[in-house]
Amino acid sequence: MSAQTQSHAISRYPVPALEDLPEDIRSRILAVQEKSGFVPNVFLTYARRPDEFRAFFAYHDALMEKDGGLTKAEREMIVVATSGANNCHYCVVAHGAILRIRAQNPLIADQLAINYRKADITPRQSAMLDFAMTVALDAQDITDEDFDALREQEFSDEDIWDIAAIAAFFALSNRMANFTSMRPNDEFYLMGRLPKEK
Amino acid sequence: MSAQTQSHAISRYPVPALEDLPEDIRSRILAVQEKSGFVPNVFLTYARRPDEFRAFFAYHDALMEKDGGLTKAEREMIVVATSGANNCHYCVVAHGAILRIRAQNPLIADQLAINYRKADITPRQSAMLDFAMTVALDAQDITDEDFDALREQEFSDEDIWDIAAIAAFFALSNRMANFTSMRPNDEFYLMGRLPKEK
Amino acid sequence: MSAQTQSHAISRYPVPALEDLPEDIRSRILAVQEKSGFVPNVFLTYARRPDEFRAFFAYHDALMEKDGGLTKAEREMIVVATSGANNCHYCVVAHGAILRIRAQNPLIADQLAINYRKADITPRQSAMLDFAMTVALDAQDITDEDFDALREQEFSDEDIWDIAAIAAFFALSNRMANFTSMRPNDEFYLMGRLPKEK
Amino acid sequence: MSAQTQSHAISRYPVPALEDLPEDIRSRILAVQEKSGFVPNVFLTYARRPDEFRAFFAYHDALMEKDGGLTKAEREMIVVATSGANNCHYCVVAHGAILRIRAQNPLIADQLAINYRKADITPRQSAMLDFAMTVALDAQDITDEDFDALREQEFSDEDIWDIAAIAAFFALSNRMANFTSMRPNDEFYLMGRLPKEK
Amino acid sequence: MSAQTQSHAISRYPVPALEDLPEDIRSRILAVQEKSGFVPNVFLTYARRPDEFRAFFAYHDALMEKDGGLTKAEREMIVVATSGANNCHYCVVAHGAILRIRAQNPLIADQLAINYRKADITPRQSAMLDFAMTVALDAQDITDEDFDALREQEFSDEDIWDIAAIAAFFALSNRMANFTSMRPNDEFYLMGRLPKEK
Amino acid sequence: MSAQTQSHAISRYPVPALEDLPEDIRSRILAVQEKSGFVPNVFLTYARRPDEFRAFFAYHDALMEKDGGLTKAEREMIVVATSGANNCHYCVVAHGAILRIRAQNPLIADQLAINYRKADITPRQSAMLDFAMTVALDAQDITDEDFDALREQEFSDEDIWDIAAIAAFFALSNRMANFTSMRPNDEFYLMGRLPKEK
Repeated sequence: MSAQTQSHAISRYPVPALEDLPEDIRSRILAVQEKSGFVPNVFLTYARRPDEFRAFFAYHDALMEKDGGLTKAEREMIVVATSGANNCHYCVVAHGAILRIRAQNPLIADQLAINYRKADITPRQSAMLDFAMTVALDAQDITDEDFDALREQEFSDEDIWDIAAIAAFFALSNRMANFTSMRPNDEFYLMGRLPKEK
Repeated sequence: MSAQTQSHAISRYPVPALEDLPEDIRSRILAVQEKSGFVPNVFLTYARRPDEFRAFFAYHDALMEKDGGLTKAEREMIVVATSGANNCHYCVVAHGAILRIRAQNPLIADQLAINYRKADITPRQSAMLDFAMTVALDAQDITDEDFDALREQEFSDEDIWDIAAIAAFFALSNRMANFTSMRPNDEFYLMGRLPKEK
Repeated sequence: MSAQTQSHAISRYPVPALEDLPEDIRSRILAVQEKSGFVPNVFLTYARRPDEFRAFFAYHDALMEKDGGLTKAEREMIVVATSGANNCHYCVVAHGAILRIRAQNPLIADQLAINYRKADITPRQSAMLDFAMTVALDAQDITDEDFDALREQEFSDEDIWDIAAIAAFFALSNRMANFTSMRPNDEFYLMGRLPKEK
Repeated sequence: MSAQTQSHAISRYPVPALEDLPEDIRSRILAVQEKSGFVPNVFLTYARRPDEFRAFFAYHDALMEKDGGLTKAEREMIVVATSGANNCHYCVVAHGAILRIRAQNPLIADQLAINYRKADITPRQSAMLDFAMTVALDAQDITDEDFDALREQEFSDEDIWDIAAIAAFFALSNRMANFTSMRPNDEFYLMGRLPKEK
Repeated sequence: MSAQTQSHAISRYPVPALEDLPEDIRSRILAVQEKSGFVPNVFLTYARRPDEFRAFFAYHDALMEKDGGLTKAEREMIVVATSGANNCHYCVVAHGAILRIRAQNPLIADQLAINYRKADITPRQSAMLDFAMTVALDAQDITDEDFDALREQEFSDEDIWDIAAIAAFFALSNRMANFTSMRPNDEFYLMGRLPKEK
Repeated sequence: MSAQTQSHAISRYPVPALEDLPEDIRSRILAVQEKSGFVPNVFLTYARRPDEFRAFFAYHDALMEKDGGLTKAEREMIVVATSGANNCHYCVVAHGAILRIRAQNPLIADQLAINYRKADITPRQSAMLDFAMTVALDAQDITDEDFDALREQEFSDEDIWDIAAIAAFFALSNRMANFTSMRPNDEFYLMGRLPKEK
C-alpha cells in the first residue's frame, strides 16, 4: 500500500503487523490494548519507525503522566485546545476522550476544542490556555509579560515550562497526525460522555 | 442582570420569561420544546428581540428545511464545518447534534468541526465544503472557477446558491452566538452518538 | 442565463421580471422605486428567492430603521466600515450613499470604507466601530473587556446589541453580495456628494 | 504643534509656510496649485523634509508620468487597488480622483478601491492588478509563473517592471500617509464624478 | 534565578551544573563538547529536565543522523528554512552553522533562513522545502496533491515521512527555543563561513 | 536575456554595461566600487532605469546617511529587522553586513533578521523596532499610543519620522528586490563577522 489516503485507513502509511514489531514496542502496545480495550491508532501509525515511536512516547509520558502543579486533566485541556487551533482531528478526538474521563466532565472537551474562551473553566485555567495558545500559534512573540500573567495566577516556573512543553509537543504531534491523516479510533468519540463511566 | 458572562448563563443578555413573549414566538418555542424535549438556547437568546427572532428563524427555515439538490444532512454539514472555522461553540454543538441524527452517523460532526479534509465524506461533499469555507472566510475572492468546480460535481446553480446562502447565514449566526456567549444546551452534546437513537 | 459573471450584469444569477413576483415583494420594490427613483439591485437579486427576500429585508429593517441609542447615520457607519473590511463593493457603494445623506456629510463614507481610524468621527463612534470590526472579523475573541470599552462611552447594553447585530447581519449580506457579484446601481456613486442634496 | 492627530489637520506633523520653503519646492507647489486649483496635502506634508520631498516626487514622476505599455489610467488603477488593500485613505481618495479623470469613468475608482475582482476592467487589466496585489502584499512569493501570466496578456518585461515598481512605490507612500495621518483635500472626493468634467 | 530574560543568559530558566546531571546526560554533553569545542546551549537548556532531554535528543538523532534518500545537508536545509519561518533565532543560527559545514556552502543558510525561493538549490530541494513549509505552517491543509508533487521529484514515501517529521520536530524545537529565549552560542555565527573550514 | 530567474544571476532583468550608463550614475557606481571593493548588485539592478536609480538612492541617502537622534547603526537595525519580516534576502544580507560594521557587533544582524525580540539591544531600540515593524506590516493601525510609546523612550518627533520613513522606504526596496530576485553579492555574507575588521 502506498501513502495515499484511503477511506477509513488508519494512516496514509502502511501499518506493521504486531508480530513484526520490536519486543518493547509490541509490549507497550499490548499493555495499552489491555488497559483501554483497543489500540489507539497513534501507536500503530508510529510503530513503523521504532526509534521515533520510542522518542515520541517517552516525550509524551514525561509531560503528560507526571505529577506537579497541573492536574492531569489540565494537561489534557492544553492538548485539546491547542489541537483544535491546529485543526488536528486525531488529537482532538483522542485527547478529548481522555480529558472527559480525567475531568469527569462530558462537556469540557467539545467546549475547549472549538473556543476555550467559552468553556466552563476557572480564570487560572483560562490564563493557562491563553499562554498555551501563544506557544502553539505565536511563540516568537512571547515576552516577560506572558510569564507575569501566569505568575499572577500562581503558576510556578516549573508549571509554566509544563504548559509550554505540552503545547510545543503537540505542535509536533498535530503536524504528524495531519501529515499521516491519522484516523482516531471510533471508540474515542463516545468515551467519557455517558454519566456512569468512571 | 447586565450583559456580563456568567457561569453557565444561557447568554450575556437576560432571557425573557415565556409568558412575556408575543404569542407567535411563544408558540414556536413551545412547539420546539414538545418536539425536542427542551428549548434550544438560541430561541431564548433571540426572544428578547421579537422582530429579529422572526427574521432569523424565517431565514433559517428557508435555507435549512427546504428540499432540493442538497440533503438536509448536507445542509447541516455546511453549518458544522463553517461554524468550526468561525470558532462558534454554540453552532458546532447544537448543529453537530442535528447532523449526527440527520446523517445517522455518530462520528461525522466531530470530524467536520475540526478538519473537513479528514472527514468521511464523498468528493462531491468535499467540493461543497471547499466552497462553503470560501464563502465563510474569503468571499471577496470568489471567481468563476469556484462555480466551475461545483458544476463538475453536478451541483446546479440553485444548489450553489443554497451552499453559499447557508454559509452566509451562519456567518451571521456564529457572530451573534459568539457575541452573546450563547451556551449550547447540555442535551446537545450526546444527541445522535448512541447506536439506537433514530 | 446561467450564473456566470457578465459585464455589467446585476448579479451572477438571473433576475426575475417584476410581474412574476409575489405581490408583497413587487409592492415593496415599487415602493422603494418610487421613493428612490430606481430599484437598488439588492432587491432584484434577492427577489428570485421570495422567502429569503422577506427574511433578509425584515432583518435589515429591524436593525436599520429603528430608533434607539444609535442614530440612523451611525448604523450606516457600521455598515460601511465593516463592508469595507469585507471587500464588499455593493454594500460600500450603496450604503455609502445612504450614509452620506443621513450624515449630511459628503466625505464620511469614503473615509470609513478605507480606514475608519482616519475618519472625521467622535471618540464614541470610534469605539463603536472598534467593536463592530471585532464582531465582523474576530467575533470568537470577544470578551468582557470589549463590553467595558463601550460602556465607558455610555453605550447601553441595547446599543451594544444593535452594533453587534448590524455587523453580524452585514457579515451575511457582504458574503451574499460577493457570491452573487451583486452590482451597485450607478446612481449610488454620486448620491449625497453634492452640496445641495438633502 | 506636536505630532498629534488633530481634527482636520493636514498631517500629524507641522506644515511649513510656503515662503519658508526652498525655491525648487515652492515652485513645484505653486505650479501644481495653478494647475489643480489647490495644493494636494501630500506636497505640504513632505515639504518639511526637502530632500525626501525631492526624491519622493522624482520617483513618483518617473513611474506615473511616463509613456509606455501601460496607459496613465492603468498606472492609477494600480495605485488605487493597492492603496485600498493597504487601507490608505489619502491615496485612495487622491488617486481615485485622478483615475476617474484619466479613465473618464466616474465609477472605476470606488470599484477598484474595494474589490478589483468586481470592477469594470478587461482581463488584461485584471492580470495586471493580480500581479500588483502580489507585489503589494506577498512580494516574497513571486515566481516565474507570475511573469508567465503577465506575458500571456502581452505585457512586456518593461511593462511588468512598471507594474511592480508602482505597487512598490505606493507601499512606501501608503505607509507614510498612514503614519502621518495625511488628510486628503476635500476637493478630491468629488473630482471626476460629474458627467461633464474633462 | 527565576525565569526572566537576562542579558546574554543562555535561557530564561536556570542551567544546572554539569556535575549535578545524570551520568548519561553528562556523558553526552561532554562528548559533544569534545567534538565541537563548546557545549551548544540547547543541551544545557534541556538538561534540567532529564527525561525531556533524553526524548528530545533521541527524536532529533532518529531524524537527523540517519542515512536515506535525503542527505544530511538536505535535512539541515529543512531545519533552517522552517525555523526561519517560525522566527526561531536559536535554530536558525545553530543549524545554519551545521548546514554550512555539511553543504560546504557558506551562503546557503542565510539564503534559506530568509526566503528559500531565492536560494541556490535544485528544483528537487525546492519541492522538498515547499512541503516542509506546508507541514510547518499549514499542516491541516495537506492533501494527496502535496504527495504527488514530491513523487514527481522522485522522493520515496520514506523520504516524504522524513521531510514531514523533521519539519514537525522543529515545530516543537522552535517553540521551546522561543519560549525559553534560548541563546545560540557565539561560536555558531561564524562556523562554516570561512573558505578553509572543513 | 529575458526577465527569468537564472542561477546566480544578479537580477531577473538584464544589467547594463558600465560604459553605457549616464555619467552621474557611472560615477556613483565607480565611487562605491572604490570604497567597498565591489559593486553592490542593487546599483546594477537599478541602473537600467536611470531616473528611478537617481530617486531611489537620493531617498536612501536622505534617510540613512544623515545625522540625528538615531545612530547610523540604529538606522541599519530598522532595515535588517523589517527586511527580515518582509523575507527580503538581498536587504537582510547586504544591510546585515553594513549593520555589523557600523555596530561593531558580529552577532546583531542575524539576531535582528530572525527575531528582534531576542536580540542584544536596549529597551529604547526595542521600542524603535516595535514601531518600525508596525509601519512595515500594519501601518493602517498606527495610533497616538504608538507615538506615546516612542516619546517615553525619549525619541523626538523627528526621530519618529526617521524610523517610519526608513521602514517605509524599505517596504519599497524589499518589494523591488523580491520582484527582481536581486542577488546579494557574495562579499556581504562575511563582512563584519571577523574580529579585526573595522
